Amino acid sequence: MAKKVGDRTLEFSERINVISYGNVVGKFEGEGPLKSCFDIIVNDEYFGEKTYEKAETKMQQTALNSALQKGLLKISDLNLIASGDLLNQCISSSYSVRDNDVPFIGLYGACSTMALSVIVASMSVECGYSQYAAGVTSSHFCSAERQFRQPLEYGGQRTPSAQRTVTASAALIVGKKKTNITVKRIAIGSVIDFLVTDANNMGAAMAPAAVDTVVHYFNDTGTKPQDYDMILSGDLGAVGASIFRDMAAEKGYDMQNIYNDCGLMIFDNKKQDTHAGGSGCGCSGAVLTGYVLPRLASGELKNVLFMSTGALMSTTASQQGESIPAVAHLINFTGE
Amino acid sequence: MAKKVGDRTLEFSERINVISYGNVVGKFEGEGPLKSCFDIIVNDEYFGEKTYEKAETKMQQTALNSALQKGLLKISDLNLIASGDLLNQCISSSYSVRDNDVPFIGLYGACSTMALSVIVASMSVECGYSQYAAGVTSSHFCSAERQFRQPLEYGGQRTPSAQRTVTASAALIVGKKKTNITVKRIAIGSVIDFLVTDANNMGAAMAPAAVDTVVHYFNDTGTKPQDYDMILSGDLGAVGASIFRDMAAEKGYDMQNIYNDCGLMIFDNKKQDTHAGGSGCGCSGAVLTGYVLPRLASGELKNVLFMSTGALMSTTASQQGESIPAVAHLINFTGE
Repeated sequence: MAKKVGDRTLEFSERINVISYGNVVGKFEGEGPLKSCFDIIVNDEYFGEKTYEKAETKMQQTALNSALQKGLLKISDLNLIASGDLLNQCISSSYSVRDNDVPFIGLYGACSTMALSVIVASMSVECGYSQYAAGVTSSHFCSAERQFRQPLEYGGQRTPSAQRTVTASAALIVGKKKTNITVKRIAIGSVIDFLVTDANNMGAAMAPAAVDTVVHYFNDTGTKPQDYDMILSGDLGAVGASIFRDMAAEKGYDMQNIYNDCGLMIFDNKKQDTHAGGSGCGCSGAVLTGYVLPRLASGELKNVLFMSTGALMSTTASQQGESIPAVAHLINFTGE
Repeated sequence: MAKKVGDRTLEFSERINVISYGNVVGKFEGEGPLKSCFDIIVNDEYFGEKTYEKAETKMQQTALNSALQKGLLKISDLNLIASGDLLNQCISSSYSVRDNDVPFIGLYGACSTMALSVIVASMSVECGYSQYAAGVTSSHFCSAERQFRQPLEYGGQRTPSAQRTVTASAALIVGKKKTNITVKRIAIGSVIDFLVTDANNMGAAMAPAAVDTVVHYFNDTGTKPQDYDMILSGDLGAVGASIFRDMAAEKGYDMQNIYNDCGLMIFDNKKQDTHAGGSGCGCSGAVLTGYVLPRLASGELKNVLFMSTGALMSTTASQQGESIPAVAHLINFTGE
């Protein structure tokens, strides 16, 4: 049985394992420092489809297929797909699973969806619902930009604190079958609103949620940053990561050089001019499945905290003068 | 331990119980045939707020508070809130839980969210994550109409197959504490697309998903319609409910007079001129928490199948010529 630890954390021990994972990224991501990490790099931003939204749907299918292939599984082996994305009504996710006959839980966690989907998938395995369950997410620069910000053709100037939505999809399959990567613990975050209203500074809005979740987790488990090889937030970007370090230090947790942020890893911010770094559900998804999990599989990493962060506003909320609530969900992955 | 039964169904036996439930509805819903069933009827469509979206957020808080009060619980007793709504980026849900310090899982299941949120909450209890977990959802005629259809001021004619979005929020708290209503089984639906493209006929788009889920459930459990006191879909409306009956009969399941639809129960379609009936996440939520659960508590009903249905399109998808995928999630509630 899984064991509840403290307020927020569930400890699966070694019952839930990472069976397989896959990803697909866009051309620009494929030119970044992690280019050698990804399964598939797609140069066509339409991915052969007529719209960016349909391209994003196809990316989810592609990432999941890549995970299935690597895990020697068929789609019919899955008992659940838990997925979500940034688009209104999460269409990338629901359209990607049409008629595949697999039970589906649709999620909305903004850029926290990679962790959230794996948490829900893991809970379904723990419950006995799933033998194999997939967590999937995606984001696409072009579909997000035109939905949340401006028409692409407008070519608006971006502020230094703005992050660039990553074009990527990632899928992770969990199950009870023994592998050498374990979902040891999960911690579900609560929604924190630090009254940031600048939609071009989502890192600042999300950092307090990340601190809240990681501090709860440390308290729950009696662990500290130095117990881990790597602590990864995704995607606070340059501004948010700096706030995260400071706020965590104030709470007594010095992150030192163990900590990094997926939004800072996926692009070379200087060469690629991505301002404060990457964002979007696909950002932490691509870094997790492209960089982190392969290093846990090889033994290079042993004990990782992975925390996806999401800014939960909408354009309507922002237009109504609302601040930006945020959430962060955490997974402790361990290797052998 | 919960037991997986067949492809889609998880049987909790008597481990997961309905602790409490609450709801709030709008004026028009409070004039319908179920007017005596609701906790709170709000005559002001703004609910004292400046926008419909903020009103919907307040409705979620009000429904959850009603459930907490009736269950003699505090918000801090909850270990999880799982919620979702129809608005872009599910803002009613995420804004309603700001800074309440309760772990939050954001969902998108369109009008299937009442069942989906209770399923996720129940799984979190079964896993050991939650002692008490809430499933919450909402919809608001005014916020939905202007987001999905036309500006309210336009006063567009509606087709006979169109349904009216219900203004309502509902909350249900589950836990392991013994009560006289049990979440006996859950079945998670898969996404079915019958290639319906008419966004004014969502009942037709959703009916095949409802049939798919209920037929899987009957196969999984070896039960038949006559084993239940009531089988309820929500919210197929007049067109969808008729298709559902026909398609289920073709598969060998004659629903007879055991079957009804939440969208047909909440309004008096003739007097209130609601065309094909009610829809929206709040529709099945209000009927479940206002009509069904009190009758299970009193012993009038003993064994109910409750199935929320969701149409998973967006305006963008419809404008791109896409058909409407749908999903239905099922819960078997039992009383004593």
